[in-house]
Amino acid sequence: MRIASYTTAAGPSFGLVTGDGIVDLGRRTPHADISAALAAGALAELARHASAAPDHALSEVALLPAVPSPLRKVLCVGLNYRAHVAEAAGREVPEHPRIFARLADSIIAHGAPLVRPRNSAQFDYEGELAVVIGRPGRHIPAARALEHVAAYTIFNDGSLRDYQKHSVTAGKNFPDTGPLGPWLVTADEIPDPAALTLETRVNGERRQRASTGDMILSVPQLIEYISAWTPLSPGDVIATGTPEGVAHARRPPPWLTPGDVVEVEIGGIGVLRNPVVAEEDPA
Amino acid sequence: MRIASYTTAAGPSFGLVTGDGIVDLGRRTPHADISAALAAGALAELARHASAAPDHALSEVALLPAVPSPLRKVLCVGLNYRAHVAEAAGREVPEHPRIFARLADSIIAHGAPLVRPRNSAQFDYEGELAVVIGRPGRHIPAARALEHVAAYTIFNDGSLRDYQKHSVTAGKNFPDTGPLGPWLVTADEIPDPAALTLETRVNGERRQRASTGDMILSVPQLIEYISAWTPLSPGDVIATGTPEGVAHARRPPPWLTPGDVVEVEIGGIGVLRNPVVAEEDPA
Repeated sequence: MRIASYTTAAGPSFGLVTGDGIVDLGRRTPHADISAALAAGALAELARHASAAPDHALSEVALLPAVPSPLRKVLCVGLNYRAHVAEAAGREVPEHPRIFARLADSIIAHGAPLVRPRNSAQFDYEGELAVVIGRPGRHIPAARALEHVAAYTIFNDGSLRDYQKHSVTAGKNFPDTGPLGPWLVTADEIPDPAALTLETRVNGERRQRASTGDMILSVPQLIEYISAWTPLSPGDVIATGTPEGVAHARRPPPWLTPGDVVEVEIGGIGVLRNPVVAEEDPA
Repeated sequence: MRIASYTTAAGPSFGLVTGDGIVDLGRRTPHADISAALAAGALAELARHASAAPDHALSEVALLPAVPSPLRKVLCVGLNYRAHVAEAAGREVPEHPRIFARLADSIIAHGAPLVRPRNSAQFDYEGELAVVIGRPGRHIPAARALEHVAAYTIFNDGSLRDYQKHSVTAGKNFPDTGPLGPWLVTADEIPDPAALTLETRVNGERRQRASTGDMILSVPQLIEYISAWTPLSPGDVIATGTPEGVAHARRPPPWLTPGDVVEVEIGGIGVLRNPVVAEEDPA
């Protein structure tokens, strides 16, 4: 199933994406949003509406982030592809994953503008596979970790590289720099998250292309590591790191500038597309 | 004013601390919690109830974190006292502040147990002054930053030092490791946040003592820096870093162990006291 979160004139809802249409699950089920449905263990219940006539054309709704607000925990892995570790200042592969948190107001929907801030021009893309938790847990062993995954989606971990040198948290949390979407694809459709092809394009030009099998730590290993120190809950998101090819590693760096369009595509999930705009001047 | 958030049999509320009593503001005002009251700019309205008869004895309520859930943004400064920078592996004073985010489920109330996890014994205290935002802003200049501060409180940035070597986010986010309280003290009572004395004690033994005037970056400078890359909203918390004297820098390190009691005292605010317990084994 593809499950999108969106807004219409009637307010926010979520629904099944079927072809060019959306079946509204907000009005057909008692769940307020996808996170509540996941917390209720309701994926099978949602699936029963797959053959309903669509309520909306996909093109007529405004998508929300694939996990919408309130988005409690977005944890990202810093260096999880060997070739990206090498290009990121030639660092050695770290013994443990480097994790940082994204604040909810940095996360945007498919189609929403990526905002290049006024105070940094070093705006970079990072295409990533994102994991959405379905079943809560702490101290989850890797062997059972995939049982806790409800769905996958795509993340663009938009980064301001000069601020990232101050601290990863600063460089990764400018508002409206982290697209998450376009929708969730439930885990039953992705039996092996290590067998996906990821590609990032800027204005149609390929910048990143890798297999998720190139990750240093697999999705189950990341879940084991992260759940050792923080509980995971339905709707929590783990972004699994980006492969090589970021602007920062190119000479001269092709930083994102207003007017650019960034696409991150993962086979079996979809295409996450966002235009770049300049931060508006203060009123 | 001292404003506490708390729970009774009637549910969560917030109120004015007057001596040994609490005047319930949840039932006297339309605001659901202190964050909502701050967002409504209602501090003057709250003050009008200061002479009411207390509804509860302070000793009979269960305090909540000084800013209770939903706690959207807790941003912490890593190295903000010169003597602590020196003791933390002799590092040079960083050119820019190192910021990290605390997840809401790592934050606890005054009196609640600090949980030493099963998978790390390197449990350390860090007494800190915490700033609570009252007026929203982005790109806030230091000269106007204190206008955005509603209140101050105390934070103990409980840290697992082995995991912190993996990434600061991991070591600082174990559940139930970050006491925030005991209450808020409004900014009108603390005209100069650089003139406070901070002391941390473990089982009554002094471990840290410093003036907040020893901060490398002042409260206004921190607000200017942080608001350059993330918007600040009412109820957001900035923890301003810890001075020297942490367990990690002592030989042998006197790590926190179950049965210990940690107190962080800041003159003019109060004492934040928490016992240490062991994480329970899984059911």
